[in-house]
Amino acid sequence: MPTENQLNPTARFLMGPGPSDVHPRVLKAMATPLIGHLDPQFIRIMDAVKDMLRRLFQTRNELTFPVSATGSAGMETCFVNLLEPGDEALVCVNGVFGNRMCDNVERCGAKLVRVDAPWGRPIDPAQVKQALQKCSPKLVAIVHAETSTGVLQPLEEISRMVHEAGALFLVDTVTSLGGTEVKVDDWGIDAVYSGTQKCLSAPPGLSPVSFSVGAVDAMEKRKTRVQSWYLDLSMIRKYWSGEKRLYHHTAPVSMIYSLYEALRLIFEEGLDARFERHRQNHKLLREGLGALGFEFVVAPEYRLPMLNAVKIPEGVDDATVRQWLLDEYNIEIGGGLGEFAGKVWRIGLMGCSCTKNHVNMLLAALRQIMKQ
Amino acid sequence: MPTENQLNPTARFLMGPGPSDVHPRVLKAMATPLIGHLDPQFIRIMDAVKDMLRRLFQTRNELTFPVSATGSAGMETCFVNLLEPGDEALVCVNGVFGNRMCDNVERCGAKLVRVDAPWGRPIDPAQVKQALQKCSPKLVAIVHAETSTGVLQPLEEISRMVHEAGALFLVDTVTSLGGTEVKVDDWGIDAVYSGTQKCLSAPPGLSPVSFSVGAVDAMEKRKTRVQSWYLDLSMIRKYWSGEKRLYHHTAPVSMIYSLYEALRLIFEEGLDARFERHRQNHKLLREGLGALGFEFVVAPEYRLPMLNAVKIPEGVDDATVRQWLLDEYNIEIGGGLGEFAGKVWRIGLMGCSCTKNHVNMLLAALRQIMKQ
Repeated sequence: MPTENQLNPTARFLMGPGPSDVHPRVLKAMATPLIGHLDPQFIRIMDAVKDMLRRLFQTRNELTFPVSATGSAGMETCFVNLLEPGDEALVCVNGVFGNRMCDNVERCGAKLVRVDAPWGRPIDPAQVKQALQKCSPKLVAIVHAETSTGVLQPLEEISRMVHEAGALFLVDTVTSLGGTEVKVDDWGIDAVYSGTQKCLSAPPGLSPVSFSVGAVDAMEKRKTRVQSWYLDLSMIRKYWSGEKRLYHHTAPVSMIYSLYEALRLIFEEGLDARFERHRQNHKLLREGLGALGFEFVVAPEYRLPMLNAVKIPEGVDDATVRQWLLDEYNIEIGGGLGEFAGKVWRIGLMGCSCTKNHVNMLLAALRQIMKQ
Repeated sequence: MPTENQLNPTARFLMGPGPSDVHPRVLKAMATPLIGHLDPQFIRIMDAVKDMLRRLFQTRNELTFPVSATGSAGMETCFVNLLEPGDEALVCVNGVFGNRMCDNVERCGAKLVRVDAPWGRPIDPAQVKQALQKCSPKLVAIVHAETSTGVLQPLEEISRMVHEAGALFLVDTVTSLGGTEVKVDDWGIDAVYSGTQKCLSAPPGLSPVSFSVGAVDAMEKRKTRVQSWYLDLSMIRKYWSGEKRLYHHTAPVSMIYSLYEALRLIFEEGLDARFERHRQNHKLLREGLGALGFEFVVAPEYRLPMLNAVKIPEGVDDATVRQWLLDEYNIEIGGGLGEFAGKVWRIGLMGCSCTKNHVNMLLAALRQIMKQ
């Protein structure tokens, strides 16, 4: 049988909902020869990754590390370690990823209470307040940056209510981390997960997570074993922390190299400068899209800078235009998910894909395509 | 705060239980700029990976692909998709990874029946026969290559018994795949998982799996949802197969690049030549270690070529010598796990780490160290 051809993908500009473009230094880090997952030099790299993730999450949480799988596994890690069968969980839903949280709650055998807002709108704290009067959840979960709709969810007011109700506060920051403020300690977040392939601009494959003392306490008080062996933090903690690093599973060495280098790049730029860059390029894109007649899905005050959801104009065919952008311009943008399929485009300006040049290229390409 | 130093690990020779040395072409593949996980070009790469994995597993199973996490997640994928609460499962245990299977069965809420053999010895088919007279398991699980002890488990006779009992046959080939024959179809294996960081010589982070028609049928007859969202094959199948590739989670693009290139290297060498290379270098190592007075844990007819477990000689300090090998020679070998901790070394000759030069370097280093 013949062998396959050499790997030869076309160079793309990644302006969808992730993965985003990866910096050449991160690509180079991926090509670093491997050392063992118990090598003292690797332990030092792990420690540096934990330190940098704490700075990024703006937390002092000891239990902060990247889960060895993509963002959805980080979500599952949070739910399966914090919930036991019979527990109650309140989930705020205004898009695909809120729904995914509900699915996780049910698979844990926990009782689900939902608070729903229309897609494209944030959750109103008053809704959470009302719901908390009728249930006593162990945790309340919400998405900070809904990748399916482009909504940035304010968290502080809801966090206060959650803590007054004696619950843990669980937040999805897959799309926000590294592109806008995520203040885990100041905002009273007890469990948080993210992904590497969005504003961190590393390849997909890891999910940074962090847990407060309260969350760790809840894990230690469990009466049942965590239903997932692979994601059981009672064991994983012994590999990522402590003096003896006990083998649990073989760490994805090269992926951790990539995260190490992506985090270095973030701190070389500085968090404030990075967030400002995301705001500025979002502004440039917004103005350009406005001039082309596009309408945003989300009201101005709740728009994510890194994920721009716009309505597909009347008479424009979704798949045709995205295929054209990919084939003729090597630009990838994202289609709509769930109830937004065929109706919305999702334009990402994440990490290394968030530059004036990316914005200008996309706007020029759209102008040319829409003239035809 | 200062930024971390540049990534600069020492170059090592990886002769432990994995990760193994990675070919420069695979490292280079990891540095390939990313394309999107729904890009038609990426779909073609996925299809090629599936085809090559089928050739490697020697199977025609449609449902053959790499799980987006390490080998232990592949194990969990098999158990959580095939077992439901109340099902019965028979697990053969003669080392750490058999025990891990038992843990998985229990977390699925299934009833566990164990067959145990002493560590370092294979499971006797007569034991399985006897056990099958007292239970009616939905599946029987066994480890083909026990990484904790170095035992190669013969499978064909046990497979026949399992099928006569109407059960599914689940096999761990994490350490064997790519280094010795794994004939999924001929041996009647219904569910199989492996890892990329052993004899495939790709970085850790993916777990190739394959499922027979019978296994898929059992999944389709489930009455309950799979307890893991991330590993639920009823959804993952729609991304890896079928005409429409439905988004489930963002695929680890760079890791799949690395597997693509590692598989190309395997078929350029040829499976038979590759297996013969593993046998020949095992022989060279065995003779050299024998001359140095080392004893193997496993009887000759059941020894894995790629994972050589030897007793640590009287008067030799485990940690000191392994540290010395690492610091002075940059050679990593593995310590013992579980009941073999401090008593056994595990010397890997896997994939790119399986060369005459690796064997000669290690033997020479051991000779020099043991003279001191």
